[in-house]
Amino acid sequence: MSLRKSWVTSANHADCPFPLNNLPYGVFSVAGGPRRLGVAIGDQILDVAAVSDRLPVDSGALTDPRGWNAVMALGQEAWATLRSALTALLSETAEPRPDVLVKQTDATLHMPFAVTEFTDFYASKSHAINVGTMFRGAENALPPNWLHIPIGYNGRTSSVVVSGTDIRRPWGQLKGPDGDAPRWGPSERFDIELELGAIVGQPSQGPIPLDQADANIFGFVLLNDWSARDIQAWEYQPLGPFQSKTTATSISPWIVTAAALAPFRCNTPPRDKELLPHLRDTGPMLFDIDLEVMLNGTPISKTNYNTMYYSAAQQLAHHTTSGCPMRVGDLLGTGTISGPERGQCGSLLELSWGGDQPIELPNGGTRRFIEDGDTLTLRGASHGDGYQIGFGDCSGTLLPALDDPFGR
Amino acid sequence: MSLRKSWVTSANHADCPFPLNNLPYGVFSVAGGPRRLGVAIGDQILDVAAVSDRLPVDSGALTDPRGWNAVMALGQEAWATLRSALTALLSETAEPRPDVLVKQTDATLHMPFAVTEFTDFYASKSHAINVGTMFRGAENALPPNWLHIPIGYNGRTSSVVVSGTDIRRPWGQLKGPDGDAPRWGPSERFDIELELGAIVGQPSQGPIPLDQADANIFGFVLLNDWSARDIQAWEYQPLGPFQSKTTATSISPWIVTAAALAPFRCNTPPRDKELLPHLRDTGPMLFDIDLEVMLNGTPISKTNYNTMYYSAAQQLAHHTTSGCPMRVGDLLGTGTISGPERGQCGSLLELSWGGDQPIELPNGGTRRFIEDGDTLTLRGASHGDGYQIGFGDCSGTLLPALDDPFGR
Repeated sequence: MSLRKSWVTSANHADCPFPLNNLPYGVFSVAGGPRRLGVAIGDQILDVAAVSDRLPVDSGALTDPRGWNAVMALGQEAWATLRSALTALLSETAEPRPDVLVKQTDATLHMPFAVTEFTDFYASKSHAINVGTMFRGAENALPPNWLHIPIGYNGRTSSVVVSGTDIRRPWGQLKGPDGDAPRWGPSERFDIELELGAIVGQPSQGPIPLDQADANIFGFVLLNDWSARDIQAWEYQPLGPFQSKTTATSISPWIVTAAALAPFRCNTPPRDKELLPHLRDTGPMLFDIDLEVMLNGTPISKTNYNTMYYSAAQQLAHHTTSGCPMRVGDLLGTGTISGPERGQCGSLLELSWGGDQPIELPNGGTRRFIEDGDTLTLRGASHGDGYQIGFGDCSGTLLPALDDPFGR
Repeated sequence: MSLRKSWVTSANHADCPFPLNNLPYGVFSVAGGPRRLGVAIGDQILDVAAVSDRLPVDSGALTDPRGWNAVMALGQEAWATLRSALTALLSETAEPRPDVLVKQTDATLHMPFAVTEFTDFYASKSHAINVGTMFRGAENALPPNWLHIPIGYNGRTSSVVVSGTDIRRPWGQLKGPDGDAPRWGPSERFDIELELGAIVGQPSQGPIPLDQADANIFGFVLLNDWSARDIQAWEYQPLGPFQSKTTATSISPWIVTAAALAPFRCNTPPRDKELLPHLRDTGPMLFDIDLEVMLNGTPISKTNYNTMYYSAAQQLAHHTTSGCPMRVGDLLGTGTISGPERGQCGSLLELSWGGDQPIELPNGGTRRFIEDGDTLTLRGASHGDGYQIGFGDCSGTLLPALDDPFGR
């Protein structure tokens, strides 16, 4: 596919993240006004409520105060007709309507949908091998179940925030490998995880086949699962990560739809072990999405979502196997996305190899883990012929720990 | 404290679970009508909306379609004044109002509140030692962190159901210790976990002290965390339980308030290791609650909540340490409640010692794990002077697995 041109001329540049081919969904406000649904186009936002008479969707869904949940609930057919209508409205052949646009620089972006529940997976083989090697040695790096099921855990919905939200370094219970007893202090190994988040757009009740799981995914956001590695190391046996992951999880403000990413579908890598039939790939359900981590504006990692061992559809299908009900607005983190090379790793834990090999920053300085005041930014885009499907930044700045965490 | 008498005479018997001293909160409907908030008194339900003009609470909160969430959101002072007003209305010295009562036998009970998020802990030392011994041997039974923090994991809110809901035996990925590869089949080791669920009634943002955590707990329900042990054994390394726990979690239909349980407060057992200051007990925050598990009407286990190592307040305080926001309607499972004797264990896994020592049922027959058609019921009550504070049954019947789990 090549660039589709819009009467919003800023959308027609090859380096614009939001061309007509993209049309991602967000929530914005202007000057402290009410939150409204919007669609990014070029350097503008289409105010959806202002054109609701031109859209084939009940206007109630377009004014859902939670964001895009009510539109998702309408189902796949409505998603497609809405996308067609928006494409027609913004196409270069349509009558320009600058009166329904808001400049992105004038807008504040909010959570694009209400997160119903948050699940985080662990589906990058390179990441699993890296972390497993550091924690359990190279011979036991990959747990025996890893090649058979997408390993995941339930995260904490209340801690999901939109890009731009400052993150406060947490306190926690810490115990070094040599200490006799744990102590209470600010996390010293605070980290990021570069991920995508898949958004479940249709409910299910009981196990669903892989194709249905794929069809139920409405879209994707970038996701940074901030992680306190020292809290995690002490708490995670035997029931998994808990408080180490609940300080915050940041997502990018625009939902890039599965429809917009369709030209970039690709297959999962070759299977090391054949999957059981209900998880076996039936088509290309990964996506070719270039990803980047920036630390204070400097790139420190570059990788691609196409390196993942399990697709989001496989994760969702597995999630339903036990009869677990899935609902509109469920957010599934892919897990940290790491390629096989050190510079392709999606966490500082891996980039600095457990803190033993600090990374060097081009302006001088090194990093083992995040330092107070650091701004971490995730970027992502699929690259087509003369256009790209961008996600918008997923960014957060780490504030220092409070002197007294109970003293607020 | 002794029995407080009500003009609802069925509430005045020593063996009634719902005397005036209790006043638990639920949601009921009659003959398919709308859901309404109700208070159990004797064998009746007080229709709260019908007496809203006599209650010191905004009537909007008393008609929250989600249940008691809006009342919880009003805060501790409102909880106390509402309880006083209800006590006065139903006291034997008040004018009888049989017109605002509905017989419990005429009512259907629903979820008493909307569960915002569900966290499950692992706070019974006997349970942790039993399970740890089976899985890792007696010498490594208790993980090193266990005596320092309440270990927990995030569960799946969408799978929480009210007592009386049938439970479908799940399919899952299973691998026996001797198998080369996993297979896909119905769980063969389906189990229960006898727990209490603490309901967070006030939000918090950031770490809170133990006393505030205790004050923020609105009440308790019985909780059965149905668990597929064979799915769990294969999936849980390294990120904890996931699909093994998401088939269903049943709760009892009445919220027994912390206020009603106040006369039964007791201390946690002696500490094996001194806790860090923010988790150190500041008062009696456990409760003396007798608990029982029935299998098809036969008692198979009797224990007490006062055996737990960590209180719900300690669990909630720990939950907030990382800055994790807590919200009204968060449900915190205590973890399986097991006493030190075999007959005091809260799971079949422990009662049958991993299935190796089937329990014998008085009517003949044995059980290792739950069989199709079995009804499991949890009961609980605190016993005062001539009265009790009962919870109402938490019950569920296991339906056989579907022949084709995708064939619905």
